[in-house]
Amino acid sequence: MTRRASARFAGKQRGSPDAPIGPPSLALFPAAAERQRLDDELTRALIESGARIPRGSVVPDFDRETFRRELEAFDFSTPRPLSDVLAWTMAQLEHGVVHMTHPSYFGLFNPAPAFPAQCADRIAAALNPQLASATTSPAAVDIERHVVRALGARAGLGEGVTGHFTSGGSEANATALLLALASSHEAYVQDGVRAFSGQPVFYVSRESHLAWIKIAQQTGLGRAGAQMIATDGTGRMDTGELASAIERDRASGRLPVMVAATAGTTGAGMIDPLEASAAVARRHGLWFHVDAAWAGALIASKHLRGALAGIELADSITIDAHKWFAATMGCGVLLTRHATSPSKTFEVAAGYMPSQSASVDPYMTSLQWSRRFLGLRLFLCLAAAGWDGYGSHVERAVELMAVLRCTMTAKGWTVANDSPAAVVCLIPPAGSAQVRSIVERVVASGKAWISVAKLEGSDIVRVCATHGETTIEDIHHLADDLCRAAQEPVTPSTCNASPASATYVR
Amino acid sequence: MTRRASARFAGKQRGSPDAPIGPPSLALFPAAAERQRLDDELTRALIESGARIPRGSVVPDFDRETFRRELEAFDFSTPRPLSDVLAWTMAQLEHGVVHMTHPSYFGLFNPAPAFPAQCADRIAAALNPQLASATTSPAAVDIERHVVRALGARAGLGEGVTGHFTSGGSEANATALLLALASSHEAYVQDGVRAFSGQPVFYVSRESHLAWIKIAQQTGLGRAGAQMIATDGTGRMDTGELASAIERDRASGRLPVMVAATAGTTGAGMIDPLEASAAVARRHGLWFHVDAAWAGALIASKHLRGALAGIELADSITIDAHKWFAATMGCGVLLTRHATSPSKTFEVAAGYMPSQSASVDPYMTSLQWSRRFLGLRLFLCLAAAGWDGYGSHVERAVELMAVLRCTMTAKGWTVANDSPAAVVCLIPPAGSAQVRSIVERVVASGKAWISVAKLEGSDIVRVCATHGETTIEDIHHLADDLCRAAQEPVTPSTCNASPASATYVR
Repeated sequence: MTRRASARFAGKQRGSPDAPIGPPSLALFPAAAERQRLDDELTRALIESGARIPRGSVVPDFDRETFRRELEAFDFSTPRPLSDVLAWTMAQLEHGVVHMTHPSYFGLFNPAPAFPAQCADRIAAALNPQLASATTSPAAVDIERHVVRALGARAGLGEGVTGHFTSGGSEANATALLLALASSHEAYVQDGVRAFSGQPVFYVSRESHLAWIKIAQQTGLGRAGAQMIATDGTGRMDTGELASAIERDRASGRLPVMVAATAGTTGAGMIDPLEASAAVARRHGLWFHVDAAWAGALIASKHLRGALAGIELADSITIDAHKWFAATMGCGVLLTRHATSPSKTFEVAAGYMPSQSASVDPYMTSLQWSRRFLGLRLFLCLAAAGWDGYGSHVERAVELMAVLRCTMTAKGWTVANDSPAAVVCLIPPAGSAQVRSIVERVVASGKAWISVAKLEGSDIVRVCATHGETTIEDIHHLADDLCRAAQEPVTPSTCNASPASATYVR
Repeated sequence: MTRRASARFAGKQRGSPDAPIGPPSLALFPAAAERQRLDDELTRALIESGARIPRGSVVPDFDRETFRRELEAFDFSTPRPLSDVLAWTMAQLEHGVVHMTHPSYFGLFNPAPAFPAQCADRIAAALNPQLASATTSPAAVDIERHVVRALGARAGLGEGVTGHFTSGGSEANATALLLALASSHEAYVQDGVRAFSGQPVFYVSRESHLAWIKIAQQTGLGRAGAQMIATDGTGRMDTGELASAIERDRASGRLPVMVAATAGTTGAGMIDPLEASAAVARRHGLWFHVDAAWAGALIASKHLRGALAGIELADSITIDAHKWFAATMGCGVLLTRHATSPSKTFEVAAGYMPSQSASVDPYMTSLQWSRRFLGLRLFLCLAAAGWDGYGSHVERAVELMAVLRCTMTAKGWTVANDSPAAVVCLIPPAGSAQVRSIVERVVASGKAWISVAKLEGSDIVRVCATHGETTIEDIHHLADDLCRAAQEPVTPSTCNASPASATYVR
């Protein structure tokens, strides 16, 4: 604001038609030449850091106190040149986060992002279309619907499939539960949980994602609404236990509404028995949801999609494009075969809203209101790679993990899981260091990121192929590192390894 | 996948340590030189379209059927060069959405995105850090916390302020309601809505954002949980009515939990009486939330922040950085003065989760689990522009609308609202065309995007300054267009104007 404009403003002499208006903020809206210069600079900085990261530490190796001091100096009183701030930020991030873009990040489903998805993010950011309504952004809404239909068809949900993009799997799973609740009892939409004569409950396995507990809570069921079903000794939902739990709950006055099978458990990459789970759900008249947030990507592979047999029976499916489809975070998808279910659940009836578009406007058929153009990421990836490109991408990850399985078995380790997807759970040979120590040592070395998980009650070393450019050499290095870490004597220094290794965020 | 690998895979001879592994997908992970070429191409394409859009139609002017035919041709069976797909996509979006980046988009709080925020999106997309946990992404989590504290301090919430970034205002407001429910009754977390002895309800004004209805539903209260309080004739919550409603509800067995005042109503940009609303909430022991999704940006201006007096009394505040702070979509923020409230509400207790970080891990203190590095957008903008830069940005928008108010009054129009922010509600002179016709004509011309809204029951022409580069000439052109549209006789062609004009998505 110019001094003159400011004075005028303070004096309340607002709005003379000929009053001078200050210039736009050049810091927020630089001229085109400056934007081009900075974008070119950023392109090169990203490519350079992208070349360094795979050669550096996969875990943070910065001095956090120094970083924090520098961060505190940003008090936002004195503007700084964007170019400087970008350089500082890039340097801090290069050394201050666990790198999903490191090919030896064998972690928790966070991918190295595919380049077309990054391009999609640039376009969405620059044009900033509003994905709330089809009348506002018809081209963008159509592109998302096209991708949703393609995904739904590939998953076998048939012609009536509908759905939308979400911030991630949590939102997609929460949406599925809301659809199930509204489908179970029409009065739920208006009267909420109190419309039910008892406690509504849904069923997931003990190996399912813990986000279900938060979802049970945020939808007003309370955490008690999430019934955790025992697994069968291999990490898959025990469908006999599932049926018994439903009967027991009904007998005690609880109201079952949904069975949610997991396709790709976080710990061990296991796929619940989908057909048997669907049969139990059907027999009891419950909504059948498949949380395929990670392993849903197997639909892309002609060779591997058979592992998902039964997914086509789902009433709804969650797939996170930001997991194995390698889109940038966060990009979840909720699919449902019930074309009118989302609008029945989320429609907002108000006289001045355009009712003709109730069934196609994202804000009328989903949890969010204003929303980013998320679906472009998967559209560009699918357009550039095709289903076969994604098929090779997931097959390659599965093959790399098959190599690891084979290698470690030959070295005397035990493979504790039998996943058709790209997660291997390892138990070291008798007499080795503890699982937790082994993982901490490997992670502290900065050479690879792996994690501790529990499978059927036991600690295991969890390894997951997440990076589309991981090589067989990376696998061999990991195998060697694991063996070395298993044989090292315990010392105080390795026991106090980076806390990053303890993190198990599913 | 190579043919050999594929055959091996089909034959189940998986995992020989020396087996060949196919190359990474070049379509998903191009080489560095190719990424640089494509990013440079995209930089230029975005700058060129950014120069054309302000000279073109603000509303879609494409042939949707042709577009849809071309879209259907993407069956994802045959990969296409990314360069071609990008060019096609850019062309479609340039003509297929309402443009928030057009300086005559006077619309619904969707901004032309600030350039530093776009840079932040590029960095977040390329490095793809996981914002679920502080141990995974310490630098990124610290940057977000720094911004949250700066925002909280600026809003007057004091030292204990905490909070997090969300997909948008809906999620932030839903979070506030969940905090209020958990604060109102400890058993809510475990037992949900049924823990309450009656129907929990919260209070918003009739002019509040309709997303509250969906929020009431998604949190299990049912839509009946959102009590809509009458306004005072100027579009602000009537706090007398608020107090009466609370007393009436208590008397009838309902359980009030929260008062949510709106700072910047969607229709008229009005700010509910914050101090009086806070006093009512305090008197009745209710959580006091301020939905400042849009007008929260006024905290940046020394001259205008007084309009938010009382916001510092809030238990929680919603601010959408993707509205007046001009970040890219979607970038909401939830702030709360109760440091431990989010962890009490969202903490997930599981033996193998690192409990020491419960109060700082975003997934333990918010609705989402995996999350994008959203906060970097606001960090880069604040670092480059400073609070004063944002102050000028919001003051400029308010001044432009003051000019419009003055101009239209001089032309015989009535200004129906008295907002301290940048929304003007206009009623044409007696004898003019209907409000809806005027808006449809202006929008159909492609010269400007405005909307119809209702204020206190009457249709008004709604104009909001959203683009940081809108000029006073744009305002004068709009004034002329409005007058012309008001005087034109009704013809069938103008009555069948683009449906885009009817959209009112708050």
